[in-house]
Amino acid sequence: MTDSPATDRDAAGDAPHARLHVVLYQPEIAANVGAVGRTCVAAGAMLWLVRPLGFLIDDRRIKRAGLDYWEHLRWRAVDSLEEVAEAIGHDRFWAFSTRAATPYTQARYQPGDALVYGPESRGLPARLVEDRPERAVRIPIRGEARSLNLSVSVAVGVFEAVRQLDAEG
Amino acid sequence: MTDSPATDRDAAGDAPHARLHVVLYQPEIAANVGAVGRTCVAAGAMLWLVRPLGFLIDDRRIKRAGLDYWEHLRWRAVDSLEEVAEAIGHDRFWAFSTRAATPYTQARYQPGDALVYGPESRGLPARLVEDRPERAVRIPIRGEARSLNLSVSVAVGVFEAVRQLDAEG
Repeated sequence: MTDSPATDRDAAGDAPHARLHVVLYQPEIAANVGAVGRTCVAAGAMLWLVRPLGFLIDDRRIKRAGLDYWEHLRWRAVDSLEEVAEAIGHDRFWAFSTRAATPYTQARYQPGDALVYGPESRGLPARLVEDRPERAVRIPIRGEARSLNLSVSVAVGVFEAVRQLDAEG
Repeated sequence: MTDSPATDRDAAGDAPHARLHVVLYQPEIAANVGAVGRTCVAAGAMLWLVRPLGFLIDDRRIKRAGLDYWEHLRWRAVDSLEEVAEAIGHDRFWAFSTRAATPYTQARYQPGDALVYGPESRGLPARLVEDRPERAVRIPIRGEARSLNLSVSVAVGVFEAVRQLDAEG
């Protein structure tokens, strides 16, 4: 790991007050993180990256995929999901996993909730789904497609959460 | 243009019967089309590519982004939006555009509808929005983000349409 806390961009230190959080657990591909960062800026979400990461945090591919939006992104890199929970509150996680039983549209997202996604190649650890099945959701897809692209999964989850939050005023 | 109708994959010729359609009008970037193709397979949507395209239809980057899902994709390349309308029926288009007034969540998608997206660099022609404002929608985003990645916009639209169709049984 070569990123340092000094590169984090959360100057106000107001993580608990974000409208939504997106947590990428051990993401592997820089371009995906860049695309997710752009989505987070668009949706007003804060991005958390849980180490280890499969790329350098200053990888040019992140900013290329995120274009000029990266500068507007609130994000923080941490060493564990527990660190995120301590910052934003426990019982805030929604684990997105193909192993989950509940469709993501049936979750009831609250302001300040966190959408958690696993690494591209293997998804979230099974225990995250098994320990809290009521907080685990899946995006229903056709059998021919084993999974969705990570940046696509994040966008689908985030904009459904935004839809619900906006509908409730 | 080097793609030929023979490369289209719609062997059954049953385009009008797809659950949903995604139309990319003059897409410029192969990797985006690959990612959109993957989303279409996942959602059971048929993909239309309206020429000219900014890449070769057999570009390896399409299949790389779409991974092994491309073989399951139903798609067709055509020369105009009119060709799509003739195949799937008129009054089926929803034009996704930052110029539109209506949030995409307020549209009422019907089975067989088509979600239409413009090229990455400039979006859909203004006339498509102005001619039929009631069929034009936008994805609301924060001002700091000028737009979303094309593959992200498609996924957000498609999965909202799927959500509505599933909710109505």
